[in-house]
Amino acid sequence: VRVVDVVASALPAGRVVTSESERRAHAHDYWALEAIHDLGGTPAEPPPAVVYPEATSEVATVLEIAQQHRAPVVPYGLGSGVCGGVRPGREALVVDLSRMNRVVEVRPESLVAVVQAGLNGGECERRLGEHGLTLGHFPQSIDRSTVGGWVATRASGQLSTRYGNIEDLVLSLEVVLPGGRVVRTFPAPRASTGPDLRALFLGSEGTLGIVTGVRLRVHPVPTHERRGAWAFASVADGLDACRRILRRGGTPAVLRLYDGVESDRNYHVGTDKVVVLALDEGDRPVVDGCFAVVEDVMSGAERLDDSLVDHWLAKRKDVAALEALIKVGAVVDTMEVSGAWSDLPAAYDAVVAAMSAVPGVLAASAHCSHSYLTGGCLYFTFGGRPEVAEGAEPTVAEREALHRAVWEAGQRAALAHGMSVSHHHGVGLHRGQYLPDALGGGFAVLAALKAALDPTGILNPGKLGLPSPFGPVELP
Amino acid sequence: VRVVDVVASALPAGRVVTSESERRAHAHDYWALEAIHDLGGTPAEPPPAVVYPEATSEVATVLEIAQQHRAPVVPYGLGSGVCGGVRPGREALVVDLSRMNRVVEVRPESLVAVVQAGLNGGECERRLGEHGLTLGHFPQSIDRSTVGGWVATRASGQLSTRYGNIEDLVLSLEVVLPGGRVVRTFPAPRASTGPDLRALFLGSEGTLGIVTGVRLRVHPVPTHERRGAWAFASVADGLDACRRILRRGGTPAVLRLYDGVESDRNYHVGTDKVVVLALDEGDRPVVDGCFAVVEDVMSGAERLDDSLVDHWLAKRKDVAALEALIKVGAVVDTMEVSGAWSDLPAAYDAVVAAMSAVPGVLAASAHCSHSYLTGGCLYFTFGGRPEVAEGAEPTVAEREALHRAVWEAGQRAALAHGMSVSHHHGVGLHRGQYLPDALGGGFAVLAALKAALDPTGILNPGKLGLPSPFGPVELP
Repeated sequence: VRVVDVVASALPAGRVVTSESERRAHAHDYWALEAIHDLGGTPAEPPPAVVYPEATSEVATVLEIAQQHRAPVVPYGLGSGVCGGVRPGREALVVDLSRMNRVVEVRPESLVAVVQAGLNGGECERRLGEHGLTLGHFPQSIDRSTVGGWVATRASGQLSTRYGNIEDLVLSLEVVLPGGRVVRTFPAPRASTGPDLRALFLGSEGTLGIVTGVRLRVHPVPTHERRGAWAFASVADGLDACRRILRRGGTPAVLRLYDGVESDRNYHVGTDKVVVLALDEGDRPVVDGCFAVVEDVMSGAERLDDSLVDHWLAKRKDVAALEALIKVGAVVDTMEVSGAWSDLPAAYDAVVAAMSAVPGVLAASAHCSHSYLTGGCLYFTFGGRPEVAEGAEPTVAEREALHRAVWEAGQRAALAHGMSVSHHHGVGLHRGQYLPDALGGGFAVLAALKAALDPTGILNPGKLGLPSPFGPVELP
Repeated sequence: VRVVDVVASALPAGRVVTSESERRAHAHDYWALEAIHDLGGTPAEPPPAVVYPEATSEVATVLEIAQQHRAPVVPYGLGSGVCGGVRPGREALVVDLSRMNRVVEVRPESLVAVVQAGLNGGECERRLGEHGLTLGHFPQSIDRSTVGGWVATRASGQLSTRYGNIEDLVLSLEVVLPGGRVVRTFPAPRASTGPDLRALFLGSEGTLGIVTGVRLRVHPVPTHERRGAWAFASVADGLDACRRILRRGGTPAVLRLYDGVESDRNYHVGTDKVVVLALDEGDRPVVDGCFAVVEDVMSGAERLDDSLVDHWLAKRKDVAALEALIKVGAVVDTMEVSGAWSDLPAAYDAVVAAMSAVPGVLAASAHCSHSYLTGGCLYFTFGGRPEVAEGAEPTVAEREALHRAVWEAGQRAALAHGMSVSHHHGVGLHRGQYLPDALGGGFAVLAALKAALDPTGILNPGKLGLPSPFGPVELP
């Protein structure tokens, strides 16, 4: 008896879909290597079926059956991950949460909202907006990702310096464990009642449980805003300004630095200027206080026109340029890492140099997308084309080899300069190889967690660098 | 062969101490029930020995031997917990971290400091102060607690609205697991590399590993300060003001509300006034912006003299009055819980009423000590005396019974109104009974974590509501 049939017979009609198109649509996420394979005619094998639960109890049923049958299961939001985190391979059932998309409760007085995990991010914002509220979480993928996906990947939004990252915005979780047990963590604003169980599932990428419900901390829609743009002579100078803003307690919602290449590409200011944008929003005195710090720190820099911020706002969800390049066979991707302020300038130089040194790379650049009191996130972009005989078209294997070589060079250079493996894109399949070394002895703890919560290993096998007891989920 | 002797022979001379006085000094923490028993002549049984490791490798040696011999071990900081969290019972070796008290590294540019876990909190502040830095973590116990103890108990400081609680201040941890494996979590300012492993040990109360090193986020010493004090007509009105300050983005380092009883007891303003104190510190524009929100929200309240804040600052570490009451046989204790803003007023009323209804209770009151965007911490204090025949002195059993009855009444009332089991005092022994229900299915997850990381159950057995495979650690 096939597990798909058992699941189908245990759930109401219409929950299990096995059409070719649905299966293909769930065969991978936005991982750049998948695009290379799709374009080259060697696409990912589709999963056997897609399950669309409509209630937590249905997710529990799926995980009870899956555990009994030792069948692999991959939870799926809207598939906008970029590291292969939802790649099911040919065996795993995909559990698509997108029908669990209700706003369950809004408590405006306490600034709390409870939503189902499959709610689309943009829709979540629109629904909160009806109450005069915002989550304040604006990833570039907001319209093609879910709240549950944000939790599973430890996502960051573009306004995180004011509102926090997803781990700061989650008050409690409803999670279904392998076997079907439902856990609802306690929704206190803060507690000391043992280890924080939310943290187990934030960033677990579907390997420890399936997130079905999320209680969120929300904010009033802002009533005041300030913007500014400045230019520095070097990445190091600009990073130092960001550092000093945070150090003085300035937390502008947006604080973005672009190296010369990206400053010119995005803002046409020439490649000798390092653009820094700042935007804050919220209540007037708080925003003005923050911006007084920003402007004081920036006083030595060249002031640019505020329209640069307008331009960024207009384009911030736009990935069309990247997608166009991919469609014509270019090898392009992004790689974000994080580290301490004092390590960032050297890490920037080293990663750009390491990527650029790979034959075939035509461009490598970075911006700083998130700032913290102790450090920030460097977000690299690279592009290139395999060096092949004139007139010849690069093969899939050549494109994949170039992608992997650039990534390896960049990630190793980043790690050698004290950077983390990932800031907010997660690990998925692509970065799993780096995790055992990078977790500082913690990988054994992660493996112990996996064994404790998912003893049969059915949940999203092979991700986070963990071994898969099933067939391979790697690329062909 | 006794495990104490094996440990003693494996470590350098002087590490294992078995003197009566040292053993007695480590027999319990500041749990109110211990004071009742000490006073009544039925003190806790002392542990067999106290081990003072001086390096992480020595802690690893202890936990390797302890696991081999299946011998219980209790990590110990400075013993200022108030829930029985370090009670060893007669079998467990106490591992006192206080000799591991070095400041390992300070990186002023990146605002990072690395310290050993046994460092005294007040000493940590003094050492950071030499660099113009502060951690910003000021629990009442700062001079009688350690950095590692803060981590293990998920502590909060009195200035947390500006600086954050301990989980916000910890960048990474060095932890020794049962068996002796050392884990050093990755020190990124923020990452998405699987579940946040710090969270396993923050609040673990010594049940999952022994914290030996802590990498901290620190702040520049503040250059500007604002203070204010106001009076409201009711607890509900005052709480609503606190709520509105946070909602507008105001994060004054200190925001404290006292009910009528505590307002009069501390500030002699009569019992019909609910005092709210605010203090902020940091960089001038940020502090002024925050205080503009505070003063705007408070504009409808009666302004009191700033000297009330001075008085609070002068007395904030003072527990002499409470200790004096305990010494003369009064039954007194505190109980802190947290919940959503909209639940707090009713929870306040219910808990005070429930405590007051217990025969023998003479006073029950509360303040709100910590505020968040979505809610706050209600910190109750109760005092009483068992009702005994005139002229008779209450027995230990009668005092303990009164304490347990008041606590049970208060904690149950709090839970019934949506409050957490604990805000920052942790669980220890006293609150373990409430955890299975309160964790919303998460208790099984906690038990699975325990089994995964401490399979022989040697670490701080019987705490957090987890079963002890060894002898009882309860009170006589």
